[in-house]
Amino acid sequence: MNWDKKDLLGIKELSREEILLVLDTAESFKDISKREIKKVPTLRGKTVITLFYEPSTRTRTSFEIAAKRMSADTINISSSTSSSVKGETLKDTARNLESMRPDAIVIRHSMPGAPHMLARILDSSVINGGDGAHEHPTQALLDLFTIREKKGRIDGLKVAIIGDIAHSRVARSNFFTLSHFDTEIICSGPPTMIPPDIEGIGVKIEYNMNKAVKGADVVMMLRIQKERGGISFIPSVKEYATLYGLRKEHIEKAKKDVIIMHPGPMNRGIEISDEVADGPYSVILDQVENGLAVRMAILYLLIGRES
Amino acid sequence: MNWDKKDLLGIKELSREEILLVLDTAESFKDISKREIKKVPTLRGKTVITLFYEPSTRTRTSFEIAAKRMSADTINISSSTSSSVKGETLKDTARNLESMRPDAIVIRHSMPGAPHMLARILDSSVINGGDGAHEHPTQALLDLFTIREKKGRIDGLKVAIIGDIAHSRVARSNFFTLSHFDTEIICSGPPTMIPPDIEGIGVKIEYNMNKAVKGADVVMMLRIQKERGGISFIPSVKEYATLYGLRKEHIEKAKKDVIIMHPGPMNRGIEISDEVADGPYSVILDQVENGLAVRMAILYLLIGRES
Amino acid sequence: MNWDKKDLLGIKELSREEILLVLDTAESFKDISKREIKKVPTLRGKTVITLFYEPSTRTRTSFEIAAKRMSADTINISSSTSSSVKGETLKDTARNLESMRPDAIVIRHSMPGAPHMLARILDSSVINGGDGAHEHPTQALLDLFTIREKKGRIDGLKVAIIGDIAHSRVARSNFFTLSHFDTEIICSGPPTMIPPDIEGIGVKIEYNMNKAVKGADVVMMLRIQKERGGISFIPSVKEYATLYGLRKEHIEKAKKDVIIMHPGPMNRGIEISDEVADGPYSVILDQVENGLAVRMAILYLLIGRES
Repeated sequence: MNWDKKDLLGIKELSREEILLVLDTAESFKDISKREIKKVPTLRGKTVITLFYEPSTRTRTSFEIAAKRMSADTINISSSTSSSVKGETLKDTARNLESMRPDAIVIRHSMPGAPHMLARILDSSVINGGDGAHEHPTQALLDLFTIREKKGRIDGLKVAIIGDIAHSRVARSNFFTLSHFDTEIICSGPPTMIPPDIEGIGVKIEYNMNKAVKGADVVMMLRIQKERGGISFIPSVKEYATLYGLRKEHIEKAKKDVIIMHPGPMNRGIEISDEVADGPYSVILDQVENGLAVRMAILYLLIGRES
Repeated sequence: MNWDKKDLLGIKELSREEILLVLDTAESFKDISKREIKKVPTLRGKTVITLFYEPSTRTRTSFEIAAKRMSADTINISSSTSSSVKGETLKDTARNLESMRPDAIVIRHSMPGAPHMLARILDSSVINGGDGAHEHPTQALLDLFTIREKKGRIDGLKVAIIGDIAHSRVARSNFFTLSHFDTEIICSGPPTMIPPDIEGIGVKIEYNMNKAVKGADVVMMLRIQKERGGISFIPSVKEYATLYGLRKEHIEKAKKDVIIMHPGPMNRGIEISDEVADGPYSVILDQVENGLAVRMAILYLLIGRES
Repeated sequence: MNWDKKDLLGIKELSREEILLVLDTAESFKDISKREIKKVPTLRGKTVITLFYEPSTRTRTSFEIAAKRMSADTINISSSTSSSVKGETLKDTARNLESMRPDAIVIRHSMPGAPHMLARILDSSVINGGDGAHEHPTQALLDLFTIREKKGRIDGLKVAIIGDIAHSRVARSNFFTLSHFDTEIICSGPPTMIPPDIEGIGVKIEYNMNKAVKGADVVMMLRIQKERGGISFIPSVKEYATLYGLRKEHIEKAKKDVIIMHPGPMNRGIEISDEVADGPYSVILDQVENGLAVRMAILYLLIGRES
C-alpha cells in the first residue's frame, strides 16, 4: 500500500487501506514523544503553516508539536491577526501563502469545503484541521487509532456516538472511518440534533440513550457545538444533561470493557460527568496522545517521504 | 559596494547602489525556497523579533519564514498580546526587548517614524515593516526586484501607480526606489487621494486613469487604506471602482508586455477585477515570492555577515 | 546543593540554598546571550509550552527566548485563542497539553494557586509565570540576581518597596526571597494598598514615602495593578503620583549608590519620573537582561540536567 494523495481533506476520500496505512505509520511515530530527546530530522527544511480561522488549542498545538518534533519550521496564522480583516478572500490568502513555498498548510475554517477549495488551487499539501460541520479527518483517525489500540481490533465492535450529531464534524468523519469496517454504529441525541438522512449511510438512530449505549464497546461523547448554534436546538442545557449526559449508570449498561471517548474540549456536567470523564474506562487523554502520533504520520505521508 | 547601515528604515535613506545591492543579494537567496531542504545555517544563533502593532499576514509571515529558513530563532509579538495594554510606551517596550539581545527587530506601527525612533535608541538592527502612511521599504524593494526580473531592466520604464496614493506607504517607498532610476512615474486616483506636493518629487499626476495607464510598462494598483480613513475621501466605493478599478480595457491601453502589480491584500471588484488579477499580465504572486527573497537578503545584510 | 523539585511554583517553597543555586546557575548562562552565536544544545528535543491567560510581552518573550537559546521547541498558547472559550476547565486544558508530553509548562493565570493545582496533576514541570496577586517567582529571582550583581551582596541591605503592595505578586515573591537574607524590608504606599498582615512576616510599613526611601540601598517601584482593581483603592492617579511617585528628590534621601528597580511595564509620570527611570541609578533594563539568564537557569534545573 502506497500513499499517493497530495492532501488530507476528509475521510470520505480515503480507502480502507489508506486509513490503515495512516494508523500503522502513526504507531511507528508514537514512540518518539516518549524519548528523552523528542526530535527526529524527518522534516528538516520543510515549512508547515497552520491557518486557523476558528479558535483551537488542542488541534493547532498538536499539529505544531508534531511538525516541530520532526524538525519542520512552523508558522501560525490565526484569523484575528490575518489579512481577512482587510477584505482579502481565503483563496487569495492561500495563494499568497503558497508563494512563500510552504510544504503543508493545515487549515481550520467555519466554511465546509474550504480545505477542498484550497487543495484544488495549491501545489502545497492541504490538511483539513476541521471545516465547519463537515469533516475533521485527523480526529477520526486518532479516534480509530485509539479504538484499535485499546480493543485490539476494529471489526465486530459496537460504537455509540451520543450528542449533537448534526453539527459535529467529528461524528461525520467517524462515520466514514467506521463504515469501512464491520462495525455497528448507533447515534443518540435529541431528535433536533440527529440529521434525518443519517440512516442512509448505515448508522442506526436510537433516541433513548440508555438503549443506545447498551452493549457498546465504544461510547463516544460529543459536546454541544455552541459556535454552530447547537444550543438553539435544545430546550435547556439542564434537560440535555439529564437526557444525554454520560453517567456511571450508562457505563453499567455497556460492555464490561467499554471505552469512553470524547474529542474535547469537554463540558463537564453537561455531556459527561466527572466520574466518567476521570474514570477507568475513559481513554480521552489517550486520544490526545495518539492525535500527536497520527498528525506526525500524516505530515510524514504527505510531505516527508521524498527526503 | 558594501552595506554599512545598522537598520532598514526607509528607501529615502538608501542610495541607488544600496538598493541594487539588496536586489542582487536577494537573487542569490531566491533559490533556497525552491530546494527540497529549504534551510541554510546563515543566521543560526541569531534572534529576530517581529513586533506588529497593526494586523498582518503576509509581511509578518514573510519575515518569519525568511528568518527561519536562515536558521534564526523568531519571536512574534502582536499588539493584542503586548504590554501596551498596561500603559507601557513603545520606547520602553523596545528597550526591554533589546535587553534580551535580539539581533533584529521588525516593527510595524501606525505611527510614521516609529522605526526611526527605535533605531536611534537601540543597538539591534531595526527593520521597518510599515510605519503608518510613511514607508514600507521591503515592499518597494520586492516591487523593484520583480520589475527588474520581469522587464530585465529598470531604466526607461513607465510606471503607473493607481489608487489611494495619499495614504499608501507602498506608493511613497516606490517613489523613492523608482526615482533613483530613469523611470517615468505617473500617479492616478481621486484628487482627494493624491497629495498636492507629489509633483515636487518628480511624479506626474493624471486624474484620468485611462490616460495614466496609456503606454505603461508597469501598472501598480493600491487598495483603499480603510484603516487610515481612506474611505472618507471618496463619495462611494462603487464610484471609486468604476473610475479607478483596473479592468481589461485598461490593460489594452498599456504596453503589450505590461505587468500588473498589487502589494496585497487585494479587494477584488474594487481596485482590481478578477480577470486582471488572475490574468497573464499579473505578477502579484511573484511579488510575494520575491518578497521572501528580499527579506532574506535584508536580514543577511543587516545581521548575517559577521558569522 | 542539588535541585530536586519538579516545579517552580513560588519562592515560598524554596530554601535559601535553592535560591542561591538558581542565582549561581543563572550567572553561568548570562554569557550565552552576549555571544555571536546565541545558542546552546542543552534542551534539544525538549518541548516548552507557554500558557498565558493574562497579557504579557516581557515574561512570555523572556521564557520563549530562554528556551530557544537552549534549543528547546516552544509552543505559545494565549487565552484569546484557547479552548477556554469553549468551556473547558483549566485542569482539562492542562491534562490535554500534558498528553502531548511537553517537558515544561509555563503558566500565567489570574487565579492564585493555578500553577500549584497544575503541578499536582501533571508530570511535566510547571513554572509559575505569575498567578494573580500571589507569586511571580522568576521575577523575584531576577530581582535578587540583579541586587547581588550590583551590590556584591544581599545581606545587610535596606530594600524599600513602594506602591500597590496589596495587589502585587512581585512584592510578595520579593518578600520571600529577601526574608531568607539579613535584609531590612520597608514597604510604602497608600494605606489601602498595604495589606494589614504584612508586618507579621517581618516587613516594616512606612506610609510616608520620604521616610521609606531614607538610607535605602535598593528602591523597588511597583505599578498600580489596574487589572486587579488597584485603581479603585486611591482617590486619584494624580494624587498617587504626587505621594508615591519616585522622583529625584527621593533618590537624594537614599544611599549614594542606591539602585532603582521596576518589574515593568512602567507607567512613566505615575509611579516613576522619566529622570529617575532613565537615570544613572536605574537598573531596570539590567533586570530584563538578567531575567533571561534566570529563566534559562530555571529551565536547565527543571528539565535540562538529565541530558
